[in-house]
Amino acid sequence: MFEFRIIAECPVTGARAGEFVTPHGIIRTPVFMPVGTLATVKAMSPRELEEINSQIILGNTYHLYLRPGAEIISEAGGLHNFMNWNRPILTDSGGFQVFSLARLQKITDKNVLCRSHIDGSQLIMSPEWSMNMQKVLGSDIAMCFDQCCEFPATHEKAEDAVRRTTLWAKRSREFFMSNNNPDKQALFGIVQGSVYEDLRRRSAEEITSLDFPGYAIGGLSVGESHAEMYRILDVLKNIMPREKPRYLMGVGYPLNIVEGIARGVDMFDCVLPTRNGRNATVFMSTGRLNMRGKIYAHDFSPLDDECDCYACRNFTRSYLRHLAMTGEILGARLFSWHNLRFTIRIAEQAREAIINGNFPEFLESFTVKFHDDNNSED
Amino acid sequence: MFEFRIIAECPVTGARAGEFVTPHGIIRTPVFMPVGTLATVKAMSPRELEEINSQIILGNTYHLYLRPGAEIISEAGGLHNFMNWNRPILTDSGGFQVFSLARLQKITDKNVLCRSHIDGSQLIMSPEWSMNMQKVLGSDIAMCFDQCCEFPATHEKAEDAVRRTTLWAKRSREFFMSNNNPDKQALFGIVQGSVYEDLRRRSAEEITSLDFPGYAIGGLSVGESHAEMYRILDVLKNIMPREKPRYLMGVGYPLNIVEGIARGVDMFDCVLPTRNGRNATVFMSTGRLNMRGKIYAHDFSPLDDECDCYACRNFTRSYLRHLAMTGEILGARLFSWHNLRFTIRIAEQAREAIINGNFPEFLESFTVKFHDDNNSED
Repeated sequence: MFEFRIIAECPVTGARAGEFVTPHGIIRTPVFMPVGTLATVKAMSPRELEEINSQIILGNTYHLYLRPGAEIISEAGGLHNFMNWNRPILTDSGGFQVFSLARLQKITDKNVLCRSHIDGSQLIMSPEWSMNMQKVLGSDIAMCFDQCCEFPATHEKAEDAVRRTTLWAKRSREFFMSNNNPDKQALFGIVQGSVYEDLRRRSAEEITSLDFPGYAIGGLSVGESHAEMYRILDVLKNIMPREKPRYLMGVGYPLNIVEGIARGVDMFDCVLPTRNGRNATVFMSTGRLNMRGKIYAHDFSPLDDECDCYACRNFTRSYLRHLAMTGEILGARLFSWHNLRFTIRIAEQAREAIINGNFPEFLESFTVKFHDDNNSED
Repeated sequence: MFEFRIIAECPVTGARAGEFVTPHGIIRTPVFMPVGTLATVKAMSPRELEEINSQIILGNTYHLYLRPGAEIISEAGGLHNFMNWNRPILTDSGGFQVFSLARLQKITDKNVLCRSHIDGSQLIMSPEWSMNMQKVLGSDIAMCFDQCCEFPATHEKAEDAVRRTTLWAKRSREFFMSNNNPDKQALFGIVQGSVYEDLRRRSAEEITSLDFPGYAIGGLSVGESHAEMYRILDVLKNIMPREKPRYLMGVGYPLNIVEGIARGVDMFDCVLPTRNGRNATVFMSTGRLNMRGKIYAHDFSPLDDECDCYACRNFTRSYLRHLAMTGEILGARLFSWHNLRFTIRIAEQAREAIINGNFPEFLESFTVKFHDDNNSED
């Protein structure tokens, strides 16, 4: 269980194709993981997720702790049963939401005091709290409770977060090993350090020394430029152990995925495909389109003629624009559906290219074709 | 084309099982028709509608005229192509929305002046306008442009609406026969008359004398009691021609469907299953449930253990309540999905009972079991 096999590697870039064994099945990497914040990947049904080849989805510990709460998920027999998803699940630690969503009140080495974004009630979060809740969720992959600092952050602030993240990783691991079931759940460590190379090196060394079955890169895609992200990934590529899966947290912008894969990353997650989808914005190989655009009103071609998803095989841009303009639920569904399939397929195509030995060509053609509207600095 | 065959009839009640032949397939009656106002049955995909055995859906001429408009639907080759629905479609005339939704300005025998509920722009609607727009939509069944008066209405007001509805039925028919294609589209007449038996008789006689391939009963389920509705249906049962399909417009409350079938009605449509579904309210054989109820938080049984739909076969009430409480799109989808399947199955079960010769027993057991929360007068 939790063995990671590298089945092919790109000698030029270091991109890898692998297999990660979990209790709910083997995950073929590189892989994109749709985010199911509240025990549902927004607008999608489990069978649609299977249809678009979602190998694994993500659940958010903080959100699920608030709604429906530990008691109900425990009674249901865990998150898989609760939401009727039989493939692997990864849960985050709740640490990210402390800094992004909840109203933070006080953070010490001991724990975090914050208020719920739903009803303002007080929460006390800690490594032990997170491990307990992730045990209840019963995810295949759990994450250490970490401190993700805001961007930009001073070196001093980022260093303190690195120190605390290591402290909490030790406590997460210790509690997890005695409280959770390491045969049924893998605990991944998280590397922090903002955009500072020295802190990233330190964090990677400290975290990997704790010997987790997988490692995540946290604190990227939080406002830094693409170039800064890639610079940090270049540093980490040579420090993080080759034989363990590497997970770049919160990254789902198409260019970032292929550039991440080129830097040895195996796993990605992001709300971008579904959040953009609900806003009628779609991704395709040429870039991003806002389907509310008037130019699509009389466009009877498929959304993306390269795509094999239900939305692209059955409906025209004209119809999809109509759904967007009228705010119909089917629009949110079809745009989310396509964006997830498109993003998942990027990872599938990269994997195929790695196995076939032509990943550098895939990377080149993808990045040339995709119009980057996201980051003018890059 | 448009032949209506009665294949079984209940000798006690007059309920009938039939087949109505349309260009997009044979409709087996009694039938419930989901409403696809804006070229989508809200929250559902076409393939899900097929899965729950939606034989025919309804489109709203007024809504589609406003968005996306005649030009785009014409370019798409009609409503079937536009929305990718290959089974029969019935379109209403737009007449109902004049009185329910648009801001009515002036109604004369010639036409109706009103303002769009979307942008306030002025519209001129008439029998000819409606036939033209329904030609563009290319529905299998088109409806005459009628005047549906509000409830309650004085006898005088209701009589004037009956007179105008007959006048407009003649103009609808005349224009339709020369402008539309009667081999590819059937035009149904509509009987009005509010809750006045004499007016219903008069309207039925006038409309049926025009010889349409089918007849609708309009102006019911607009605020009158169930008892009043049934009294009018009892009157019409003996006047409306046995050999033509009968369509009770806007009726979808489960008890009304079975009582309508018992009074010789063949077709029903209503937004109730989808509108209730989006509001987390579900129908089942025992009545209506609000799935936000706290009692469902720890209920791990299926939504409706008698139901064969995707929602009932895959998720618990606890999970569905969680989706309702968090406002997730999947909740709106699953509740709509179940409600539509439940309502369609009522018609299927009634048909089976009629064919098997036990419709009175079906009617009795359905009405005894279903808790009526809709109409205290009945």
